[in-house]
Amino acid sequence: MKILKYPHKYQWNKIIQRPAINNSQLFKIVQNILEDIKRRGDIAIKEYELKFDNIQLNKLEVSIEEKNIAIQFISNQLQEAILVSKKNIEKFHTAQQVLFPKVETSSGVICWQKTVPIEKIGLYIPGGTAPLFSTVLMLAIPAKIVGCKEIILCTPPNPKNNNIHPAIIFAAKEAGVNRIFKIGGVQAIGAMAYGTQTIPAVYKIFGPGNQYVTAAKQLVSLNGIAIDLPAGPSEVEIIADDTANPIFVAADLLSQAEHGEDSHTILLTLSEKLANKVNLELTKQLQTLPRKIIAQKALSKSKIIILKNQQEIIELTNQYAPEHLIIETNNYEYLANQIINAGSVFLGHYTPESAGDYASGTNHTLPTNSYAKSYSGVNLDSFTKKITFQKITKEGIKQLGSTIEIMAENEQLQAHKNAVTFRKN
Amino acid sequence: MKILKYPHKYQWNKIIQRPAINNSQLFKIVQNILEDIKRRGDIAIKEYELKFDNIQLNKLEVSIEEKNIAIQFISNQLQEAILVSKKNIEKFHTAQQVLFPKVETSSGVICWQKTVPIEKIGLYIPGGTAPLFSTVLMLAIPAKIVGCKEIILCTPPNPKNNNIHPAIIFAAKEAGVNRIFKIGGVQAIGAMAYGTQTIPAVYKIFGPGNQYVTAAKQLVSLNGIAIDLPAGPSEVEIIADDTANPIFVAADLLSQAEHGEDSHTILLTLSEKLANKVNLELTKQLQTLPRKIIAQKALSKSKIIILKNQQEIIELTNQYAPEHLIIETNNYEYLANQIINAGSVFLGHYTPESAGDYASGTNHTLPTNSYAKSYSGVNLDSFTKKITFQKITKEGIKQLGSTIEIMAENEQLQAHKNAVTFRKN
Repeated sequence: MKILKYPHKYQWNKIIQRPAINNSQLFKIVQNILEDIKRRGDIAIKEYELKFDNIQLNKLEVSIEEKNIAIQFISNQLQEAILVSKKNIEKFHTAQQVLFPKVETSSGVICWQKTVPIEKIGLYIPGGTAPLFSTVLMLAIPAKIVGCKEIILCTPPNPKNNNIHPAIIFAAKEAGVNRIFKIGGVQAIGAMAYGTQTIPAVYKIFGPGNQYVTAAKQLVSLNGIAIDLPAGPSEVEIIADDTANPIFVAADLLSQAEHGEDSHTILLTLSEKLANKVNLELTKQLQTLPRKIIAQKALSKSKIIILKNQQEIIELTNQYAPEHLIIETNNYEYLANQIINAGSVFLGHYTPESAGDYASGTNHTLPTNSYAKSYSGVNLDSFTKKITFQKITKEGIKQLGSTIEIMAENEQLQAHKNAVTFRKN
Repeated sequence: MKILKYPHKYQWNKIIQRPAINNSQLFKIVQNILEDIKRRGDIAIKEYELKFDNIQLNKLEVSIEEKNIAIQFISNQLQEAILVSKKNIEKFHTAQQVLFPKVETSSGVICWQKTVPIEKIGLYIPGGTAPLFSTVLMLAIPAKIVGCKEIILCTPPNPKNNNIHPAIIFAAKEAGVNRIFKIGGVQAIGAMAYGTQTIPAVYKIFGPGNQYVTAAKQLVSLNGIAIDLPAGPSEVEIIADDTANPIFVAADLLSQAEHGEDSHTILLTLSEKLANKVNLELTKQLQTLPRKIIAQKALSKSKIIILKNQQEIIELTNQYAPEHLIIETNNYEYLANQIINAGSVFLGHYTPESAGDYASGTNHTLPTNSYAKSYSGVNLDSFTKKITFQKITKEGIKQLGSTIEIMAENEQLQAHKNAVTFRKN
C-alpha cells in the first residue's frame, strides 16, 4: 500500500474520497426496467433474467422439495456454524428490544410510543461466485424477532443449473424466511416493490447489491417503498500502533480488499515502523489468497496514512466515517470513546472484522460511503416502526387546552382551536 | 361529506387512494435547480429567491439584533404557551432515550450499540400565511436533547418586509437552533444539502414543505443526505360510534380539512345516525371558519364510510395507514390494540388531534400517504445513529474462531478466514 506521511489537513478530503459514481445515466437505465416490471410483471422478469443472466426460468419460486433437500448438500460443520451464528445474532438483536414507558406530560395527558413490526419485508441476496448465506441470517433473524409477518427473499440462481445455493436455502429456512424467489438484479427489486403475479409487494426492501441494485432500491424509495441503506462498496479503516501485530493488521486489510476491486481500505498510524511491517506482511499473505488479483487491485488504490498525533487520527476517522473501523492499539478504549462517525467498531488485537461479518452477533449490513455520519447499520429498529398514542382526560384537556388554543390561533388554524374549545366547555 | 354505505372490499383500495402525483416532470425541474445551487451557491440562491418569491435579499442569515428584538413582538400569552409546549415535548422525547446493554454473545465476545447524535442537521420550515413555530419546536427540541452540535434552520421571509416571523425566531431560540437563514423552497434544501459560501452543509434534513420541497429532499437523499420522511398532504382518519359527540368529530375533521385543499379526511363508523349528525355539524361549523373555502374543497373530496362490523373498521384502517387516527369510541382500547399501521393515534372523546399538533408532547411530523406501513414519525431516534462496538478476548476468538473460519471458507473469502486463524494460533 502507498504510504502518505503527514498529509496536510486540506488534503484529507481528497485522500478519503470514495470513487464518484455518475448516477444519472444509471438511474435512467434502471428506471426503465423498473417501469417495465411494474407494467408487465412476471413476463418482464423472465425476459430480463434471460437477457441479463442467460437464465431461462419457468417457475420463479423455490419449491418445497428444493427447500427440503437443500440440507443434504451442506456439511454438518457448516450447519453447526450457521446455528452458532444464528444464536449470537438472536442474542444481540433481542437485547435491542425496548419497551417505552407511558409518560404523563401534563396532568391527564398520557403519551406513549409502541414499536410495531413492518408487516411485509423483502430481502435481496446478491449472486456471484459465493453464496452469501451470512447476509440471509443478518437480515431475516431480526425480522423474525420483531415479528414481521411476511419475509420474502430474492436471489439470482446459478446460471448453470437454475438452482439457488443450498446454503442460502438452509440459512433462509433457519432464519424464518417465508418464500424464496429465483430472481436477481433490478428485476428483483422491481418485483418486491410493485408486486407481480407471483411475487408479493413488500413495504421495505433490505440487502446489498451492485450499483444497479442500489440504484433500483433508491428509485423505488422515491415511490415510498422504504429501503435499509443506500449501499456502496465495502470499506475498512484500521488504526494501529506499535503494539499491533502486523500479521493481524495485514490479514484485516486483505479481508476487506478481497471483497472487490472497489473495496476501500485505509490504515492510520503514528508509526512508520508499523507501516513498513504491514506492507511486508501484505505482500507475503497476498500470495496465498485465491482472490489475489481482486485484493491486489483494491490495495493499489488504498493508503497507509502516517499522522502526527492521536488527535489527528480521531479527526480524520470521524471525517472518513468508515463502515468498519478496527482499532488495534492498547488504548482502544480512549480512541473508541471519541469516535462519532462509524458503522461498526472492532476493539483491540483479537477482534477481527470477520467476527462481526459472520458470528459475533452484530449486524454486518452497515453504512458505507461516509453515510455513517447520519445512518445506522441495520438493527432491530430497521424492521419496525413506532406509533405514538395519546389519551387525554376531560380534566386534562381543560388544563392543557388554553396552550393549544393560543398556539392554533397564532398559526391561524381556527378549526384546530375549536376542536379544543368545544371539548373544554 | 359524501357517505358510502357498505362498500365492497374490492373497492376499498380505490376509496382510500391518495391523489397520485406525476413526479417525473417535477423531479426534472427540481434537479436542475439543485444542480445550479450546488454549482453557484449563494448567488444562485439569491436569484431564485427573487425569481420565485420576489424577494431581494442581501444578507441570508438572520442577525443577532433580529433575534434579540423578536420577543418584543410576541404576546406574553404566546410566549407562555410555547414554553408549556416545549416542556411537554422535552418530557416525552427525553423518555425515549435508551441505554443499550453490553451483551456477551459468546464467552469472551462482548457486543454493544451506542447511540450518537447526528452532528449537523438542517430544519426546513415552510412559509405561507401562518408562521409554523410549532414545527420548529417539534424538530429542534429532540435534536437538542440528543446533542446535535449544529442545528440550522431555513425558512422563507415575508416578501413584504424580508423578515422572518418573530414567533419562528422565538421558538427557534427557545428550542436551541444555532443559525437561521432566510431562504425557502428548493433553494433552501439545496443549500443545506451541498453547502454554500454562507450556509453550512448538513448531514440530515428535516421538515415539511410543498411538493417541490419534498421532491428536493428526495433527490438530495439519492446523494446520501439523509431526510426525515417523504411528506405528502396531511391526513386524518376518525373512527366514531354512537357514543361520540358529533360536534367534536366535525371539529376534528375540519381541523384536518383547513390545512389545505389536498388534505385527506375519512370517517369510519358503523352508525348511519352518527354519520348524518356529523354532516349536519360540519355544515354548521364550516360557516364560521376563516379558512372555510380551503376546508370546503378538502371535504368535497372526503368520505364518510359506513362499514358492517368492527373487524372491517380495523382492516380498512390498517390498509389506509393514516397519518393521524382519532378513535372516538368508548372501546378505543380494544380498537387501538389492533392498529398496526398509523402515524399517531388519539384515544377517546377528549383527545383532539390538535393536542398532538401543538402541546401534548408527541411529535407532529408523521408519515403520510400510507408510509406509516414502514416509516415512523419523527422521534428521538431520527436525530441519532447507532454505532455497534465489539471486543473479543484472546480466549473468545479461540472459541468462536472455527465458526467464523467455516463460514468464511464457504463464502470463499480466504482472507476473512486468515484474520481469525492467525489470531487463534
